[in-house]
Amino acid sequence: MRENTARSSVLPVAPSRGRLRPLGLDEVRITGGFWAGRRRVNATATLDHCRDWMRRVGWIDNFRAAAEGRIHRDRRGREFSDSDVYKLLEAMSWAAATADASPLDRRIAALSDVIAPAQEPDGYLGTAFGRPGQQPRYSDLEWGHELYCYGHLVHAGVAQTRARGEGELAKTARRAADHVCATFGPGGVEGVCGHPGIETALVELARTTGEQRYLDQAALFVDRRGHGLLADGEFGRAYHQDDLPVRQATALRGHAVRALYLAAGAVDVAVETGDDDLLAAVVRQWEAAVARRTYLTGGMGSHHRDEAFGDDFVLPPDRAYAETCAGVASVMLSWRLLLATGEPRFADLAERTLFNVVATSPAEDGRAFFYANTLHRHRRGPAPAADAENPRAESGLRAPWFAVSCCPTNVARTLALLPAYLATADAQGLQLHQYADAEITTTLAGGQAVALRVRTDYPAGGSVSVRVDRAPDHPWTLSLRVPAWTQGSPALLVAPDGTRRTVGPGTATVTRLFRPGDEVRLDLPVAPRWIGADPRVDAVRGTVAVQRGPLVYCAESADLPDGRDVDAVRVDPSAEPQDGPDGTVVVDGALLAAPDGAAPWPYPPLGRAAAPVAAPAGIVLVPYHSWARRGPSTMRVWLPTAGGPQDA
Amino acid sequence: MRENTARSSVLPVAPSRGRLRPLGLDEVRITGGFWAGRRRVNATATLDHCRDWMRRVGWIDNFRAAAEGRIHRDRRGREFSDSDVYKLLEAMSWAAATADASPLDRRIAALSDVIAPAQEPDGYLGTAFGRPGQQPRYSDLEWGHELYCYGHLVHAGVAQTRARGEGELAKTARRAADHVCATFGPGGVEGVCGHPGIETALVELARTTGEQRYLDQAALFVDRRGHGLLADGEFGRAYHQDDLPVRQATALRGHAVRALYLAAGAVDVAVETGDDDLLAAVVRQWEAAVARRTYLTGGMGSHHRDEAFGDDFVLPPDRAYAETCAGVASVMLSWRLLLATGEPRFADLAERTLFNVVATSPAEDGRAFFYANTLHRHRRGPAPAADAENPRAESGLRAPWFAVSCCPTNVARTLALLPAYLATADAQGLQLHQYADAEITTTLAGGQAVALRVRTDYPAGGSVSVRVDRAPDHPWTLSLRVPAWTQGSPALLVAPDGTRRTVGPGTATVTRLFRPGDEVRLDLPVAPRWIGADPRVDAVRGTVAVQRGPLVYCAESADLPDGRDVDAVRVDPSAEPQDGPDGTVVVDGALLAAPDGAAPWPYPPLGRAAAPVAAPAGIVLVPYHSWARRGPSTMRVWLPTAGGPQDA
Repeated sequence: MRENTARSSVLPVAPSRGRLRPLGLDEVRITGGFWAGRRRVNATATLDHCRDWMRRVGWIDNFRAAAEGRIHRDRRGREFSDSDVYKLLEAMSWAAATADASPLDRRIAALSDVIAPAQEPDGYLGTAFGRPGQQPRYSDLEWGHELYCYGHLVHAGVAQTRARGEGELAKTARRAADHVCATFGPGGVEGVCGHPGIETALVELARTTGEQRYLDQAALFVDRRGHGLLADGEFGRAYHQDDLPVRQATALRGHAVRALYLAAGAVDVAVETGDDDLLAAVVRQWEAAVARRTYLTGGMGSHHRDEAFGDDFVLPPDRAYAETCAGVASVMLSWRLLLATGEPRFADLAERTLFNVVATSPAEDGRAFFYANTLHRHRRGPAPAADAENPRAESGLRAPWFAVSCCPTNVARTLALLPAYLATADAQGLQLHQYADAEITTTLAGGQAVALRVRTDYPAGGSVSVRVDRAPDHPWTLSLRVPAWTQGSPALLVAPDGTRRTVGPGTATVTRLFRPGDEVRLDLPVAPRWIGADPRVDAVRGTVAVQRGPLVYCAESADLPDGRDVDAVRVDPSAEPQDGPDGTVVVDGALLAAPDGAAPWPYPPLGRAAAPVAAPAGIVLVPYHSWARRGPSTMRVWLPTAGGPQDA
Repeated sequence: MRENTARSSVLPVAPSRGRLRPLGLDEVRITGGFWAGRRRVNATATLDHCRDWMRRVGWIDNFRAAAEGRIHRDRRGREFSDSDVYKLLEAMSWAAATADASPLDRRIAALSDVIAPAQEPDGYLGTAFGRPGQQPRYSDLEWGHELYCYGHLVHAGVAQTRARGEGELAKTARRAADHVCATFGPGGVEGVCGHPGIETALVELARTTGEQRYLDQAALFVDRRGHGLLADGEFGRAYHQDDLPVRQATALRGHAVRALYLAAGAVDVAVETGDDDLLAAVVRQWEAAVARRTYLTGGMGSHHRDEAFGDDFVLPPDRAYAETCAGVASVMLSWRLLLATGEPRFADLAERTLFNVVATSPAEDGRAFFYANTLHRHRRGPAPAADAENPRAESGLRAPWFAVSCCPTNVARTLALLPAYLATADAQGLQLHQYADAEITTTLAGGQAVALRVRTDYPAGGSVSVRVDRAPDHPWTLSLRVPAWTQGSPALLVAPDGTRRTVGPGTATVTRLFRPGDEVRLDLPVAPRWIGADPRVDAVRGTVAVQRGPLVYCAESADLPDGRDVDAVRVDPSAEPQDGPDGTVVVDGALLAAPDGAAPWPYPPLGRAAAPVAAPAGIVLVPYHSWARRGPSTMRVWLPTAGGPQDA
């Protein structure tokens, strides 16, 4: 690794060292296409939606009640509800860096004014514990989420500082961080939080302030975990990642969001302290998770019961929890690993997860969300009430708000900071990791500016054109990720030369003395294709899936004739999938005759379950991220092939 | 239905009307074979094991602490721990009816002496609520389990009365029941318990005492449910069956044990009140559950999260919860439906569930239990600590005790009363429903005695011989259930005639003037056979299972060469399974080459996941109920066939 000298201050993650240097939100602008539309909805609808709901359900008022001494009577929401107010503030802060800032600045200031009076003189801040009539501070580290809430507060404070300069929010956050160091530092409480999240926050605060003690505290939290400091419980020590020290673990395990936040924090600590063993341990865990515990969508965490990773290869589509927040956390982890190592596989997973988990959660209007992201829905609806808090995470449609509503604000902050995930720089030049219409300007090593304009209709199309608008007067290297999903013959065209060469999955590079107007084009074949599964993924035996570019596709009942449900679909993978109209894909297949529902016992002797296949017709598939936009439906990603033993 | 005039008082379920008349524990004796061994272990090991554990974990002492006014400080265990003490007392009472009674009587009396002083003057009895320092009585009907605990207390009291005569336990139970009627009767608290169970108990108490008000109260509880009297919660109203009135519901849903206890109580109410609509509603729900929500083993309830039924056909083998208690409750329900209707399908499901769920739970020594009964275990162990309370229900091996330890005592009471499930009588004669070495004596309609001796090595063999030792001097009908699983040509031999006739699944009958020494033999082919699945059972696509007689079989790693795991198994269903040595079955098949574990991403483009198949060798299968007796292992019931798309 080498030292980073960031040119931008508007960085969600700002490691001081690493293989790649991140670019800030003032250096990368998304100008159109898939993500621009979602970011627009996020900025114009989701941020207000979240604030309005948190007013309505009392989570903002909790801070007033705490300041006014009536919180023991009036508190509403779960013990971690403060964190969602902070995540919204983080989202607003990043959005303020790129959007019309002044209205957002006013909203941030107003919210910060509500929060600050609830902070106690020693820096403690939390509406669920510690005041008269409440449980004592830190009396329930397993489930109290106090340090977890600080984590999101500190991330919000850092975002404010970097995007707009240190304001009241950032000062509040810093006082809280000082309180954490004083309370949980060496000689203090020998504890960790049941929910990681403080680790990334403290490292980022150290990066911003230059104060070593925040980093030391984060390292202490990472090192303390895995030694049984938390009480064992119904879900076992692995739930809290307290079964094994981070550097000894070989798999991501337990509660998925907890596992991924902790891993991200461990990477941050490893990078700042030069702890290559710790970094290697997290890379190993990431590899194991991707190879054996990740859905085709990038979704992580199959268990509903404990929102946790399952055993290796236990990835049932219809019981996929694949929490939206786990998707956000997975992208956070992959991004940190990409910066540390430069390896494109981390950007590959981030892309898969962004398009198929993060993009799936919000409704088109930005006012409803999936909390869990199943890969198979057997029955329609019922639709959640359009204007009510949803008590459960399993509804068949996106819901406006949840009793545990971590996901909406997590989506909001991810979309707000998304441009930061597109590109990086290093001593050799500039790297593009994610593709979108964008304008990128930065200063390359040597001190000269570079400006690029990216044009693409990705992910619908696979052609990515990069025009150089401004360039140093010396040669440098433009790198473009060639996604691991690429089949066929991806090619790189360098317009000034008129050269065209086939490139393999990984990274395609052009090194030259670029001049303004020069253009490089990456052509990625995005024809739809059949995807299989490792035979150890038991739950998808006898089925296949379709992917087109980075997008996973699904069958949805809305596209089937006669009100049929997706469980009737049988596909024929001997013919290639074809592009259909409007971003759909059409595959050969058939629909089983409607079951008569009269099976007296669903396990007949083999060969007696004959189910006649109706006249073949093409099956229309839609991008997974767009499912359930047409009302209650059934849906499946993994499609049975005809002729299995049950169809015989 | 017609009136029952029971000849025995030692009846676990004693309906006053119904198609069939149950026989008591003084009329049916199991003398050898599969169940006799398990009942012996239950009587000599499990009963003491449960008592010792409940002493150790403080659940018995809770009653002392309540009586002594220190319960708010000293209480241990979950809010429903009282119920396990009562279930043990019920088990002991039924065991006392058939075993050497005096030591059991002493133990029952000693435990009853601990419980009685904890009862308050108005009949309230519960160690978790209502005393100074505790939450008020009935302040948490959703989760408090107070009425549920009474249910098990009353069942224990009824068992004592019927088996040994009314003792202190029965008097305590009756005072509690009177308190329930006074508190929750018309004009009282308009509530139901979050966990059903009181309903069957009150009906049985009405049957024993002849007091209508207990039946009225049970009917009121059944009618009240489904109207949202319980608060909605994380798992939805269906969890508590409070989403729909019993008579409107078309499916068993929500928490499986709750659903099945409630359904059993509704049958009891329907039978006693002549409410055919209510009975028909439960039959409909039973049909729907069996056709669409039941595992091959008879296990019910797939969800771990809420211990609940899943959607139709969502029956993942590796996430099968299939709680032992749900198996017990399912048998309770089927038995009541069998008595009410006489239809053999209810005995079919009871048999399946007894052999493959109830018999699976206890270890050979009767001192460890499965709480959940998965159909697929992907990884070995870890073994639960042999001498520690197991916090979780998901261990890979049987555990001695659980934080929630409902299952051991539920298995114990079921094994203790098991002989009652074997046979019934009606105006025409006598019916055999379950097969075991047994001696059956009762008085037939007309007042004359009949005595039968059943000899069989069922389920290992399918030949069931019934010798008449004593018979009335008029013709009567002997009925034998021909299980629905029967294939081939089951035959009935009537020895005196020398006749042999083929019989179909359902019921085989012989009507004649039997004389002592006459013999009837039912020959059921028990050759192992392949079982398929309705194509809508998505999670077992591309796999087959094996059943032999009523026993479901499984592959277990202990029987595979070279330390291989069961996920390597591929079977060839084109050849019939064969009997192997020692009750095993051998099928044609192969083992996949050991995976190299290096899959970088488990979803390759189709056709690239080629997995070479090793030299074929027969695969040994063992009865599912016997798995995990040889240390940590992997296991699967549903076996992949070779040649699916993933193996291509």
